[in-house]
Amino acid sequence: MSSGTRHPLDEAIELTETAPGRYTARTHPAYANAVGPFGGVTAALLLNAAIRHPQALGEPIAQTVHFAAPVSDEIIQIDANPVRTNRSTQHWLVQAFQQGQLVAMCTAVFAVRRETWSAVDAIFPGGQPAPDSLAPLGWSKRPEFTRRYDLRYISGMVSLDQPDTGGEPPDAESILWVRDEPPRALDFPALASICDVFFPRIFVRRRRWTPIGTVTMTSYFHADSQTLSGIGSAHLLGCARSQVYQNGFFDQSAEVWTADGRLLATTHQLVYFKE
Amino acid sequence: MSSGTRHPLDEAIELTETAPGRYTARTHPAYANAVGPFGGVTAALLLNAAIRHPQALGEPIAQTVHFAAPVSDEIIQIDANPVRTNRSTQHWLVQAFQQGQLVAMCTAVFAVRRETWSAVDAIFPGGQPAPDSLAPLGWSKRPEFTRRYDLRYISGMVSLDQPDTGGEPPDAESILWVRDEPPRALDFPALASICDVFFPRIFVRRRRWTPIGTVTMTSYFHADSQTLSGIGSAHLLGCARSQVYQNGFFDQSAEVWTADGRLLATTHQLVYFKE
Repeated sequence: MSSGTRHPLDEAIELTETAPGRYTARTHPAYANAVGPFGGVTAALLLNAAIRHPQALGEPIAQTVHFAAPVSDEIIQIDANPVRTNRSTQHWLVQAFQQGQLVAMCTAVFAVRRETWSAVDAIFPGGQPAPDSLAPLGWSKRPEFTRRYDLRYISGMVSLDQPDTGGEPPDAESILWVRDEPPRALDFPALASICDVFFPRIFVRRRRWTPIGTVTMTSYFHADSQTLSGIGSAHLLGCARSQVYQNGFFDQSAEVWTADGRLLATTHQLVYFKE
Repeated sequence: MSSGTRHPLDEAIELTETAPGRYTARTHPAYANAVGPFGGVTAALLLNAAIRHPQALGEPIAQTVHFAAPVSDEIIQIDANPVRTNRSTQHWLVQAFQQGQLVAMCTAVFAVRRETWSAVDAIFPGGQPAPDSLAPLGWSKRPEFTRRYDLRYISGMVSLDQPDTGGEPPDAESILWVRDEPPRALDFPALASICDVFFPRIFVRRRRWTPIGTVTMTSYFHADSQTLSGIGSAHLLGCARSQVYQNGFFDQSAEVWTADGRLLATTHQLVYFKE
């Protein structure tokens, strides 16, 4: 699916500028989910529309994506607007339309990062087995996009190929290694996409597949582009969990770390579930 | 500051409709922060603009607020748009302008809630001392809005009246009781505002005041309006913490529970800090 030397993610987030801040884009078969494209790559595409904008100030620090409707394989019209630019921060609205109807949108904050006092309160789940010592994800009916990630679950994986006869676990925490497949140097679009790579927590919690769909996802980025490019294509350590499942929606949160304990992103989403 | 029988929160989120989905509003002195209004009441005001819209479907399940610029005491122009309405979910964009410039915006998801399987994975911090057994917040120079909340810190409070000579704590977790002051029946605007009532975690972590400003806040609401009104004006139990402070920004997350362990909201924000 990759046309020669370009990474499929770069193809999937490619934008054709039609006017300043206006673009067209296409879905990419390499990132297909069960219905429409993988949400992570939609997040990456919308973020890229702001990054590529000539008025972009600094780099992304936050993104909230709304998955408003299924994205079809028709052309996508994208409209990116820096709705407020301050001295060192900038607020964005990016909207994606198909046939004149909104299918996705994101807001984002860009900022000029500065050196400051820093600390990490979150507890790094270190001391895990190395990626090479773990089996890659095996799941025969998994959607195509999962083949674009090297996913090595350490804990909290569920077998979706056969019914799990165990009882419900007390929570839905997973710890896993992840990187792009094929390997690709890390940048903000790739990180934004990885923030959505954690399986819906309800699959883990109920030990079975359930119809779901993320409605909104918020990611905070805690590293600059230089730090990200320095990480290259190394595996990242993800830790995901849910807090509550209620009235057809559940939330989930995750952290994305480097192998040596740098916290790159914290991410949260609200997911629709059926039954 | 209250004109007779109305609660100051109801005055602060009052909207004057000028056209369908277009409103004017005013800041309220009862909710003043050090600079401009308390962010929670801005969140409540923007959410109210969607709730009051004649096309609103169901009830709020998620809100992301962008604090784009300081809100002055001039008139606020609000434009609320249901940008995508599906069968049971609806995506919103609400923008607030002063002098033609965007000062705040929110996106939101509304949904028709249904009965489903439910579970809570988050651990309820129960067994706390009762609100009446705890001293209310005392801090002589605190901004006016803090007097609109009955805040009873159980842990993770910091004395801001005098320098704290203790070392830096290992994290910034706080547990506290909170309700509107004067008491007011809980609803979505009140809950949206309470999601921002947790002091900036850096005050706790560094044991001192630091210039800060929330840039974006996302809240997920896990209860319906009937449940909220049934809670009335009882104290809610909040638990807040931070994950990372880096390059002038830190994140913080919190949960809002009823006294008997029902999880009403989970909330996350990214906050600018100086130095």
